[in-house]
Amino acid sequence: MFHHSSKLQYHVKVDKPDPQFAKLLQQAIGGIEGEIRVAMQYFFQAMGARGDDRIRDMLMSTATEELSHIEILGHAVALNLEGAPVSLQEESAKDPVVNAILGGANPRHLLSSGLSAMPVNANGVPFDMSHVYATGNIGADMLANVTAEAGGRTLASRLYNWTDDKGMKDMLAFLIARDTYHQEQWLAVIEELGGMKAALPIPNSTPEEHEAMEHSYYYLNTLMDKEAPEGRWSSGPSLDGRGEYTVKQQPEPLGEEPKLGRAKEKSGAQKEQM
Amino acid sequence: MFHHSSKLQYHVKVDKPDPQFAKLLQQAIGGIEGEIRVAMQYFFQAMGARGDDRIRDMLMSTATEELSHIEILGHAVALNLEGAPVSLQEESAKDPVVNAILGGANPRHLLSSGLSAMPVNANGVPFDMSHVYATGNIGADMLANVTAEAGGRTLASRLYNWTDDKGMKDMLAFLIARDTYHQEQWLAVIEELGGMKAALPIPNSTPEEHEAMEHSYYYLNTLMDKEAPEGRWSSGPSLDGRGEYTVKQQPEPLGEEPKLGRAKEKSGAQKEQM
Amino acid sequence: MFHHSSKLQYHVKVDKPDPQFAKLLQQAIGGIEGEIRVAMQYFFQAMGARGDDRIRDMLMSTATEELSHIEILGHAVALNLEGAPVSLQEESAKDPVVNAILGGANPRHLLSSGLSAMPVNANGVPFDMSHVYATGNIGADMLANVTAEAGGRTLASRLYNWTDDKGMKDMLAFLIARDTYHQEQWLAVIEELGGMKAALPIPNSTPEEHEAMEHSYYYLNTLMDKEAPEGRWSSGPSLDGRGEYTVKQQPEPLGEEPKLGRAKEKSGAQKEQM
Amino acid sequence: MFHHSSKLQYHVKVDKPDPQFAKLLQQAIGGIEGEIRVAMQYFFQAMGARGDDRIRDMLMSTATEELSHIEILGHAVALNLEGAPVSLQEESAKDPVVNAILGGANPRHLLSSGLSAMPVNANGVPFDMSHVYATGNIGADMLANVTAEAGGRTLASRLYNWTDDKGMKDMLAFLIARDTYHQEQWLAVIEELGGMKAALPIPNSTPEEHEAMEHSYYYLNTLMDKEAPEGRWSSGPSLDGRGEYTVKQQPEPLGEEPKLGRAKEKSGAQKEQM
Amino acid sequence: MFHHSSKLQYHVKVDKPDPQFAKLLQQAIGGIEGEIRVAMQYFFQAMGARGDDRIRDMLMSTATEELSHIEILGHAVALNLEGAPVSLQEESAKDPVVNAILGGANPRHLLSSGLSAMPVNANGVPFDMSHVYATGNIGADMLANVTAEAGGRTLASRLYNWTDDKGMKDMLAFLIARDTYHQEQWLAVIEELGGMKAALPIPNSTPEEHEAMEHSYYYLNTLMDKEAPEGRWSSGPSLDGRGEYTVKQQPEPLGEEPKLGRAKEKSGAQKEQM
Amino acid sequence: MFHHSSKLQYHVKVDKPDPQFAKLLQQAIGGIEGEIRVAMQYFFQAMGARGDDRIRDMLMSTATEELSHIEILGHAVALNLEGAPVSLQEESAKDPVVNAILGGANPRHLLSSGLSAMPVNANGVPFDMSHVYATGNIGADMLANVTAEAGGRTLASRLYNWTDDKGMKDMLAFLIARDTYHQEQWLAVIEELGGMKAALPIPNSTPEEHEAMEHSYYYLNTLMDKEAPEGRWSSGPSLDGRGEYTVKQQPEPLGEEPKLGRAKEKSGAQKEQM
Repeated sequence: MFHHSSKLQYHVKVDKPDPQFAKLLQQAIGGIEGEIRVAMQYFFQAMGARGDDRIRDMLMSTATEELSHIEILGHAVALNLEGAPVSLQEESAKDPVVNAILGGANPRHLLSSGLSAMPVNANGVPFDMSHVYATGNIGADMLANVTAEAGGRTLASRLYNWTDDKGMKDMLAFLIARDTYHQEQWLAVIEELGGMKAALPIPNSTPEEHEAMEHSYYYLNTLMDKEAPEGRWSSGPSLDGRGEYTVKQQPEPLGEEPKLGRAKEKSGAQKEQM
Repeated sequence: MFHHSSKLQYHVKVDKPDPQFAKLLQQAIGGIEGEIRVAMQYFFQAMGARGDDRIRDMLMSTATEELSHIEILGHAVALNLEGAPVSLQEESAKDPVVNAILGGANPRHLLSSGLSAMPVNANGVPFDMSHVYATGNIGADMLANVTAEAGGRTLASRLYNWTDDKGMKDMLAFLIARDTYHQEQWLAVIEELGGMKAALPIPNSTPEEHEAMEHSYYYLNTLMDKEAPEGRWSSGPSLDGRGEYTVKQQPEPLGEEPKLGRAKEKSGAQKEQM
Repeated sequence: MFHHSSKLQYHVKVDKPDPQFAKLLQQAIGGIEGEIRVAMQYFFQAMGARGDDRIRDMLMSTATEELSHIEILGHAVALNLEGAPVSLQEESAKDPVVNAILGGANPRHLLSSGLSAMPVNANGVPFDMSHVYATGNIGADMLANVTAEAGGRTLASRLYNWTDDKGMKDMLAFLIARDTYHQEQWLAVIEELGGMKAALPIPNSTPEEHEAMEHSYYYLNTLMDKEAPEGRWSSGPSLDGRGEYTVKQQPEPLGEEPKLGRAKEKSGAQKEQM
Repeated sequence: MFHHSSKLQYHVKVDKPDPQFAKLLQQAIGGIEGEIRVAMQYFFQAMGARGDDRIRDMLMSTATEELSHIEILGHAVALNLEGAPVSLQEESAKDPVVNAILGGANPRHLLSSGLSAMPVNANGVPFDMSHVYATGNIGADMLANVTAEAGGRTLASRLYNWTDDKGMKDMLAFLIARDTYHQEQWLAVIEELGGMKAALPIPNSTPEEHEAMEHSYYYLNTLMDKEAPEGRWSSGPSLDGRGEYTVKQQPEPLGEEPKLGRAKEKSGAQKEQM
Repeated sequence: MFHHSSKLQYHVKVDKPDPQFAKLLQQAIGGIEGEIRVAMQYFFQAMGARGDDRIRDMLMSTATEELSHIEILGHAVALNLEGAPVSLQEESAKDPVVNAILGGANPRHLLSSGLSAMPVNANGVPFDMSHVYATGNIGADMLANVTAEAGGRTLASRLYNWTDDKGMKDMLAFLIARDTYHQEQWLAVIEELGGMKAALPIPNSTPEEHEAMEHSYYYLNTLMDKEAPEGRWSSGPSLDGRGEYTVKQQPEPLGEEPKLGRAKEKSGAQKEQM
Repeated sequence: MFHHSSKLQYHVKVDKPDPQFAKLLQQAIGGIEGEIRVAMQYFFQAMGARGDDRIRDMLMSTATEELSHIEILGHAVALNLEGAPVSLQEESAKDPVVNAILGGANPRHLLSSGLSAMPVNANGVPFDMSHVYATGNIGADMLANVTAEAGGRTLASRLYNWTDDKGMKDMLAFLIARDTYHQEQWLAVIEELGGMKAALPIPNSTPEEHEAMEHSYYYLNTLMDKEAPEGRWSSGPSLDGRGEYTVKQQPEPLGEEPKLGRAKEKSGAQKEQM
């Protein structure tokens, strides 16, 4: 069950409201790198977690923290929209600041939300829940979470680089720090469960006889005019310890040419296809 | 530039066509765990790759292979739909096999595609390209790729477990194998670039002064009636080597209660808000 | 800031797991009548609330409760999926119960989520955040909330009618009760602010001179072969107390025929249009 | 059956074409507050209306009127795009008006529609029909309609406030007026059917024994550090006349901690989860 | 301006209600081959039509007819849902007809719409307006319309083939007939404007100097192990009369290998990329 | 099976990087008129092609070419983003070029993709695969392909008109040329199969007895105050040679008024409806 306390997890101050930056911040709320995504992803993973109870608790606990991050950012957006113009007066019509509202801002902050945050990204596209990655496989899910946090910290860093507002930089520095920890937290779960080698290949419960293992360890070079690049992936023992990496240059098809024959009667095709 | 040869990368045989399995296979084509996704994700990552040219080549090469996997699965769907009924005849109306077409199959395989594959998932929801994760940060992108392959192999294993068609099991065993390699291929890129420790936290180019590092290494326990779970994440040196993990039990808010005051005039609010 | 305690807001028991009902329950999680929607709607309204602080508190408080409802329903879905088949064995292939998995269940519960809840509706369509209605106008927002709760209670009643599982009926009876209160809670806010008459027309801050009031109080009958239906809407004082309702039968257009003339050069039209 | 007459329902004049305002107007066509939405919502409600025939007629009649509003706004968008630049000439490249096309306008008005209206919102996001709320419950549907009209009038007022074009203000004043009536029209249906008290809780056909009525009348305060706000919702007789409002401070969970146990074999989980 | 008369454009009778067929019919309402699409496509094309006024009138007139087709199909869906079960009683639990409701029917017809039509396709995916193709180029638009009607008639034929309900076959025969005419109507517009040869290539207003015409008339064979297929497209005068078709076997790239170099500082990439 | 060679199909040069043009170019990648769409549409049509094998080969061959066009455009976007600002420095804050980044550019090029192409359109809306039109009817599919290429060439011409960058004009001239050929290529397939007259009405395999042919050849004029426009569509032999065109002025409904009666018990309606 969820509870709420009235103060924000971290303080939010905007020194100079900027409706353009309000638009950019939306990416951290409703973008695929954003906080709605991680909150919901961890929440749904928690509800489907089977096995080690510690992981379920961590997922629910961090989901709860991410909800608080939405709250932080939502307030930051609203503060950046304070004082934004709602009317195109004669005198300000040629003022670049007013024009910027239309040009660089999200017009729906004015038209649809009454100068507050929306669950959309920096293009105004609403977040959709297909981005909640939750497979029920703890290995796949932890990797999805590290990925989400890596994207999140990349975004927060770019926002930090962009703005020159001291209050916003302070808030972003906090979010960058939490994204650091969360990246490592989910990787640490993999460590705790035996490490990456033991986890691979995911799912590690798939029996070897379900796998055509002669195809499991070669790099397939489909580039016709280039040699395969060499590296950790092209030779040496495999990361899962089950094989040895090789390279397949200029691969030949192993299958046949697909043919479907004529169309079935009454299937709605043209006569010429039947 | 892309080229095509007429044979499939791997042979596709269906012993007993099954329109229900055709519907399940769609998840491997148009699902978020599917082949369109990885093909397009690697393709767009390749087009934006900066830095080590080997990685760009790998991304483009594997994108190309994944296109061939779409082709394999698309043929498998069509073969599973061979002979599916297109008409509700009196005699077959109570036949469970015919009913299964409507019940367990995707009706749009009949109504919309003329008995062939579609770029949709097992619920008939079209793939949308927001799932192409490509940040321009090679660390975040490699993790997104491992995640995608982990999801893909989990799905392929579930499809393998479900079906009892020998031809389909053979095809899936091939795809499981390739997903094994691709998981490790992208992890091997991280190894090649210095390993996970050096990569963390992503992006590793963010200066430490952009980060409120006092918040970078604690597990935040938002669960009110439980102790924080202990593990690799709660104590010991951090995975990035920059700090030491601790736990923050029962966290207090660090910010203030957010207040927006009265609504601006002409902002479309109710009078009572102004 | 959000917190979590480990027990569910209400107890969840499933007497006989039913993967078909798991699919139906998804509508109450990820449908437009579902709990993600109200949780997020109240959350975003709270973050943008201006004016009376009590309303902001209520929005945040009830958003928090709705998050707990997601948790209840997510657990109910997982319990209904306990024991669902993951393999099509020879012997069970003709078993209608197994077939029902494919026919009446959501195949992604098996393929994608590992037998647990997903943020999708009963058709498997992911929830998208465009359904978070939050205008910043407290009148419009309260009505959107009553609407959401009315849809929610209608859905919960239909689920109650459908199932014969005692545990599920118990859980749904709780949700029906909370939807009762929430409908009235948001209407009570309108009462508290002066009642519906004072709230109308929303926004009540729009000056009368911005409105062509000669068009504000007639029912327009666009049906050519029928009289306008009579009722509270067709005569008598208007609900906002500003006018008197009338009926306009067989309306005439007040505007001109629209004409755009020829296409601009270089606008990509056909020559014949220029 | 539908018919059309060639003139617009209301006259549309644009004094000074403004591609930026064309973009804003799109919200009133293809936004969730827009005319496609109400036209389609009333149309689908009409097609599913059971019970009092007057309501079906009203729904179809007003659906038809809303189609005429799309037509008005579509023409307004095209007129605002008259004369918009289609080419980046040297001399105009630094002209802020030309730049505004790219900055403040929707580039697809130029690239995709040939300078005319599109069924998208002010962010260029296409309208999707999931926003057609039609439950078959006349109470829920009427509330959805009042909500839609409240959102619509809020939007129209904001557009009115924004523009300084006299022709556009005249058109918007008409739309504001019609939204006034439509809000009240749907509320008047509830009055006609017995009033709000009789309608509540929606659906009013749910038997009381389907409802855990001990949970139907309390405000649940999930805020840990604040008292529940007091008002019409916290004490006194309930709006439906069936109970008395109370407050539940600091609620305790009524359920158990959810546990799913180990993962099923062959379910695609990691070995460690089984 | 639109008007409505109360009778349907064509009579709708369902001899034996079938909730499974209700689901299939949804494709003709809310599918990409369906009536909402053509109604809205012609409507938006009409509102943007520049040049010959006859075409604008035809577009608006046929848009209006298509609205009447939605009405026909919406009623057909509701009639097919008459008597569908809303409760899972003990005795009927094993009845295949009741099971078919869940298996072969759209559960949201029961849960969400109260047994009536919805603006979704046969998979329950809501129609989205991105499928309204309207470019402002009359040639491209007419082709889009023929395409839509070709898809529509294909779908209607498949529905006709599927059902054995006499009333439904009668209704579909009407829709098939109208789709016949509409296909030809839009092709006839191209004839009227000078014929296909004059219309090509679309847009025919693009000056030849904007086109690298040495690339305008060859078939590019990207298949490495097959000759280009021969036909009308591989030799002879071009359909637009401006050139002669040829074939380019085994094409060589004309460009360079793309290289982006190192990542920019502060762009959020990994250090190794900079 | 697919292969790749490292050079681009055509050379890509940007004389003066322009982040605004990068945004516009996105329409040609991820718009409905763009290259992802045609690549995937031809690919899926190929996988479902039944009948004449030449057409399957053409579809796969041209799908492969379109993939190469994505590659060209993706590189063009990245080159246009070279040097785009990633930080809002004091001195540049009032620089219109920097402001244009936020105003006229896609902010996600900066925030999400690290200055490279994304699978989105010019509004930043991701491409979704519902736009892959593939019916299995070769007539409908060829028309869908001509339509797609007509839209594509219209877009490419508009982009050509807009930009003044010589390199970009050169690239676009190539794409315009290929779109010319592809339009005609698919029309030539119809010619090869017997011509448009033989193809009509699509599907040409629908038996005449499935069609209410008394409704197949009249133009229905639903405009109440205008005569039907005259032209090729209103008189003379039909394009399919099966009938004669006529006009139906002021059409009367042929059906009855739809009535659904009272709502079913337990269907979740209001009491008043039952």
